[in-house]
Amino acid sequence: MISRDPDELFAAAGAGSRTALARLLTYAESGGENQRATAARAYRGRPPYVVGLTGAPGAGKSTLTDRLIGEALARGPFDDSGPTAVAVLCVDPSSPFSGGAILGDRIRMQEHATNDAVFIRSLATRGHLGGLSLAVPDATRVLGTVGFAVVLVETVGVGQMEVDIASAADTTVVVVNPGWGDAMQASKAGLLEIADIFVINKADRPGVRETRRDLEQMLDLGADARWRPTIVETVASTGAGTAELYEAIEAHRRHLEAEGLEVARRQRVRAELDKVLASVLRSRVVDLARGAAYEEQLDALVAGETDPYRAAEALLGAP
Amino acid sequence: MISRDPDELFAAAGAGSRTALARLLTYAESGGENQRATAARAYRGRPPYVVGLTGAPGAGKSTLTDRLIGEALARGPFDDSGPTAVAVLCVDPSSPFSGGAILGDRIRMQEHATNDAVFIRSLATRGHLGGLSLAVPDATRVLGTVGFAVVLVETVGVGQMEVDIASAADTTVVVVNPGWGDAMQASKAGLLEIADIFVINKADRPGVRETRRDLEQMLDLGADARWRPTIVETVASTGAGTAELYEAIEAHRRHLEAEGLEVARRQRVRAELDKVLASVLRSRVVDLARGAAYEEQLDALVAGETDPYRAAEALLGAP
Repeated sequence: MISRDPDELFAAAGAGSRTALARLLTYAESGGENQRATAARAYRGRPPYVVGLTGAPGAGKSTLTDRLIGEALARGPFDDSGPTAVAVLCVDPSSPFSGGAILGDRIRMQEHATNDAVFIRSLATRGHLGGLSLAVPDATRVLGTVGFAVVLVETVGVGQMEVDIASAADTTVVVVNPGWGDAMQASKAGLLEIADIFVINKADRPGVRETRRDLEQMLDLGADARWRPTIVETVASTGAGTAELYEAIEAHRRHLEAEGLEVARRQRVRAELDKVLASVLRSRVVDLARGAAYEEQLDALVAGETDPYRAAEALLGAP
Repeated sequence: MISRDPDELFAAAGAGSRTALARLLTYAESGGENQRATAARAYRGRPPYVVGLTGAPGAGKSTLTDRLIGEALARGPFDDSGPTAVAVLCVDPSSPFSGGAILGDRIRMQEHATNDAVFIRSLATRGHLGGLSLAVPDATRVLGTVGFAVVLVETVGVGQMEVDIASAADTTVVVVNPGWGDAMQASKAGLLEIADIFVINKADRPGVRETRRDLEQMLDLGADARWRPTIVETVASTGAGTAELYEAIEAHRRHLEAEGLEVARRQRVRAELDKVLASVLRSRVVDLARGAAYEEQLDALVAGETDPYRAAEALLGAP
């Protein structure tokens, strides 16, 4: 029988047990004591290199992820630290209730699933206090600690949640398709903020030139002067361009190293700590909400005798 | 010159000044002292009846909103409380950086804009602590207090943020188009959670029957026993079905009244208070993050000597 103890599970997962690893990731999703113990161990381990892939449904992220697994296995890790092991986390935060544990069209990826150097998992939030924006970094750290040098995090969409998740990646790849000019228009600023690399996937379809021009114009207006996001064209279904994509990721990693990977990581750790602080405080709010003082403030609010800001101050005390 | 004092602005806005009202809504977006004073007054006034409209870009929400303004003006308020005044808040939270103050294809609505009984405003977050999920309820309360009986809140998409915003509406209308079966599949649970009414807009296009069947099946599986969401077919561009939509909203309002509108509103006020509590605490985190103890924990995190949960406890003290 498999252990329920996080330390034993880390030992087993490090020795190759997928069942142990799966349980640790379930802990990372779930909150509670086991999640705390899992995080305590995971954050002491080696962080993996995290590549985020995001884009609308149907953009071809799964097929691209599949190709990137192949590239990573063929080439070895970014930093020659030993045999490559690649993990994939699939996240769909768009549906707050399903938690997004939808494996959908992952059939292709499953051919890698029997390979010992590959681990694929969809991630949901099953009670983690901070939701996916904490469960994802926790899970990547678990994977790094048990020996995965590279973690690909695949998310759907480009909303606030995806921005949050992207902030946990070293390199973020935004996947678009030819003819998406209008759709991108709407979320331009958000895309610019997170993208280190743009992929125009399905580049065998009409409209590639226009899409590239739109992206270039967008970058002309607002890209970070230190790193202008690369634009790569791919046809993931045939594999065309996926080697170039992998090389673009490596180039971005070298850029981060030149700038000091530690600086970027400190930023990320800072963001994580802030999220944890907020979620701990949120849970204290939940506790507060069980008290009589809270009900009194609620009565006053319903009666129009106070406003939520004043009520909050009454409950929390002056700053 | 226009006053900067919220109390004076409320007096002027109540007497019909649109400039004063616009400034109050800017306060509601902006956070800070003026926002607090605005909320203090707004939450003591009469709450408006809030109708939320949500759906993907291009579903036809603006045109529908335009039609609903026409219906509301023609029919008078739901509760015969005096001359109808209808306000529209347009929110696009999908782009976290633009804040969504995009007026886009609102040209049609502008024909109402010269009508004294109509007020149209797009809402962004310009620094409000709790973001749009607090700025929207604050803004609806401002509008109610200055005399708008009905507020239509139009949001784009159906993600977590939209669910949050919908929780500030008395009646939530989810707008879909024929042929959206697959797209809806993904966010089924989220839609069910928030929809009081489904509109199949552009119902002159093929696929209406299938879309209705999909919706009915979804409702068969999971609808709240006390209110099964109505399904209305509209062609907003011609006005077909929009009277039925307005009547469906009225029917839902009567349902809420029969159940006790106060019960539903207490739920909403509770959700608002929780959000304010969380955002006040979050701002205290920001203050905390300026301290030396925080930097120490950050150093320990970067060095792999602690994890974010332990660091948070060190900073906040035991619960």
